Amino acid sequence: MPTISEKGSQMPASPIRKLVPYAEAAKKRGTHVIHLNIGQPDIKTPQVALDAVRNHAIEVLAYSMTEGSEIYREKIADYYAKNDISVNASDIIVTTGGSEALSFVMGTIMDGDDEIIIPEPFYANYNGFATAAGVKVVPIVSSIDSNFALPPISQFEQLIGPKTKAILICNPGNPTGYLYSKEEIQQLAKLVKKHNLFLIADEVYREFAYDGREHYSILQEPGLENHAVMVDSVSKRYSMCGARIGCLVSRNKEVIQTALKFAQARLSPPTFAQIASEAALDTPPSYFDAVISEYVERRNILVTELQKIEGVKVAVPQGAFYCVAELPISNSDDFAQWLLEKFEMDGATVMVAPAAGFYASEGLGKNQIRIAYVLEKEELVKAVRILGTALKEYTN
Amino acid sequence: MPTISEKGSQMPASPIRKLVPYAEAAKKRGTHVIHLNIGQPDIKTPQVALDAVRNHAIEVLAYSMTEGSEIYREKIADYYAKNDISVNASDIIVTTGGSEALSFVMGTIMDGDDEIIIPEPFYANYNGFATAAGVKVVPIVSSIDSNFALPPISQFEQLIGPKTKAILICNPGNPTGYLYSKEEIQQLAKLVKKHNLFLIADEVYREFAYDGREHYSILQEPGLENHAVMVDSVSKRYSMCGARIGCLVSRNKEVIQTALKFAQARLSPPTFAQIASEAALDTPPSYFDAVISEYVERRNILVTELQKIEGVKVAVPQGAFYCVAELPISNSDDFAQWLLEKFEMDGATVMVAPAAGFYASEGLGKNQIRIAYVLEKEELVKAVRILGTALKEYTN
Repeated sequence: MPTISEKGSQMPASPIRKLVPYAEAAKKRGTHVIHLNIGQPDIKTPQVALDAVRNHAIEVLAYSMTEGSEIYREKIADYYAKNDISVNASDIIVTTGGSEALSFVMGTIMDGDDEIIIPEPFYANYNGFATAAGVKVVPIVSSIDSNFALPPISQFEQLIGPKTKAILICNPGNPTGYLYSKEEIQQLAKLVKKHNLFLIADEVYREFAYDGREHYSILQEPGLENHAVMVDSVSKRYSMCGARIGCLVSRNKEVIQTALKFAQARLSPPTFAQIASEAALDTPPSYFDAVISEYVERRNILVTELQKIEGVKVAVPQGAFYCVAELPISNSDDFAQWLLEKFEMDGATVMVAPAAGFYASEGLGKNQIRIAYVLEKEELVKAVRILGTALKEYTN
Repeated sequence: MPTISEKGSQMPASPIRKLVPYAEAAKKRGTHVIHLNIGQPDIKTPQVALDAVRNHAIEVLAYSMTEGSEIYREKIADYYAKNDISVNASDIIVTTGGSEALSFVMGTIMDGDDEIIIPEPFYANYNGFATAAGVKVVPIVSSIDSNFALPPISQFEQLIGPKTKAILICNPGNPTGYLYSKEEIQQLAKLVKKHNLFLIADEVYREFAYDGREHYSILQEPGLENHAVMVDSVSKRYSMCGARIGCLVSRNKEVIQTALKFAQARLSPPTFAQIASEAALDTPPSYFDAVISEYVERRNILVTELQKIEGVKVAVPQGAFYCVAELPISNSDDFAQWLLEKFEMDGATVMVAPAAGFYASEGLGKNQIRIAYVLEKEELVKAVRILGTALKEYTN
């Protein structure tokens, strides 16, 4: 029997996936499973996007342009202009989700064994893209005690070596909910210029900035033209995770030209999803006002309820819709499985994402979980109460 | 300025893309450009697929399952059963186009510097996927004089070394139009079993088999369970190139489990496109009857007309909708550019795909072009007449 690749055997499995059979078994037993584990918003997709697809006039579902349709890219550039980001349609490649944009960036700037520094905890799939590309993730720990703020620049400098090609941040952060300040972005800008690195920012949660804080994009920072590569997506912005449309944005022409060659190999991004995504750009601002205030209320309730539980520490999120909580336990993988396998309160239990999968450093995050607050408030309150009761029982 | 990767600089650009500016300039001058260069069928997408998307009832455009929806995979398995291919839904991963399936296969079975043997000329993007994965394509020449039949197995054996992991075929072939016989597949089966290799077949043109010939899938060959990995797509079958839906099929559980980890990193295939693709499986057989007879007529006309031109040699295609022609010239890149830049007949010219991009061996295919017969018959005849006249003028 021919063998699979080393790379394939090293590919990380989704940290949540191994819990799925336990969740299914719980549901079969009749237990109501409240999902705190997935970043799939329950918010309705803008009507304008859904209607555009309903009204399509396609007769031959042809390839689109490799880099995405020109009109769509023009409209994306307009959207960025409204967000104080000045780019042209030619600085943009439309991708199949932010995921593909990340793959293209890694291929474009990194060879086998090159290194990319990422503050941890980070979006678990960064590990997957890095493994697939054969490159090495060098993690730098951010702490729950500082709400997962940017680690000191001196610590980054200690990690930079001849193989370092880029620093990758997620802003606002999944799973941390941390929103980097303008000053933090400027510190990173100075660092990447000094060491001649790329700065990659995953800004798919741009709109989800709370408490009057403003998102500051790496593309707003002057002097970063050749260093900044931004990854974006419609998935969370318009509650369109299933569209699979994102983009890669950079003013570095060489980056765009090279990424385009990776894009050419896969021909084009999906056409129906581009129709929806283009139309979504006409979503009225009131949609976001409602969505943001909904998330802020949910966050407030979640944090308040979590803080009531003895021994639980919470990093208060300022953006996105995730929250990392530290629990009085030693193994959240085990706890998450136990919740599904052994625990039930009033016929219900919760599914959480163990945080170890969001760390690259072995052994970190084992007492943490990620909670996605993409549920209605009542359900959230119920979920946290279940969590509190479960923790008492589990720790006894 | 930070530099791009070596891999990125080695990524092949699309062989057609560099001609695009010349085609655009010709159109601006008012010249009618007949495109023989693209494999984008002009055939209408089945109504049932277009309607399914028009009638979608989605409110939240959520992620689908990573491996594609269960119902869709069940229906795909049914489709295969009708084609004498016996697989289960769990042997199938739905991908974003056949392209993504190929990327997943390469990552799943090959590490950096591993080798894959591919008969050339082959679909140009295989080079792109291999470069992106950091693996080495080892070409084996097939000849226009045998209609691009399978090269002798003894030649394969000479190329197999410790780094060889797989043999990749496209059946029927793009760009060759060659349909491998059952005997040829069986020769390959014996070879991969002897040397413990994977056999990957890109069978996206399965239905397009002409002259009463039957397509024989690698998944129909007994004993290949652990070796065979098939790549498929709805793009050509249903004239749905813009959907970006394909799949990877294998009875080798380890391959599927590993490929699934690559799939998890990118979350899910596009939802609207899955709706269209699932519905497309209900396309009535009459659709294919009409499409196949249309392509056969086009092929006959194309070949007849090409054979009238002095010095032109044609490999008669038995499948797909491409044809490789050898011309009495020494550099088809230059000729293709000249056609767009300098030539015009009755206000029209043609755009062809130079064949060198379909070879991995440096210097091969320079007197060949690929013609896609995805145009109506009259336009095809006109295009070949233009080609004939142009050749006379160019060679003088």
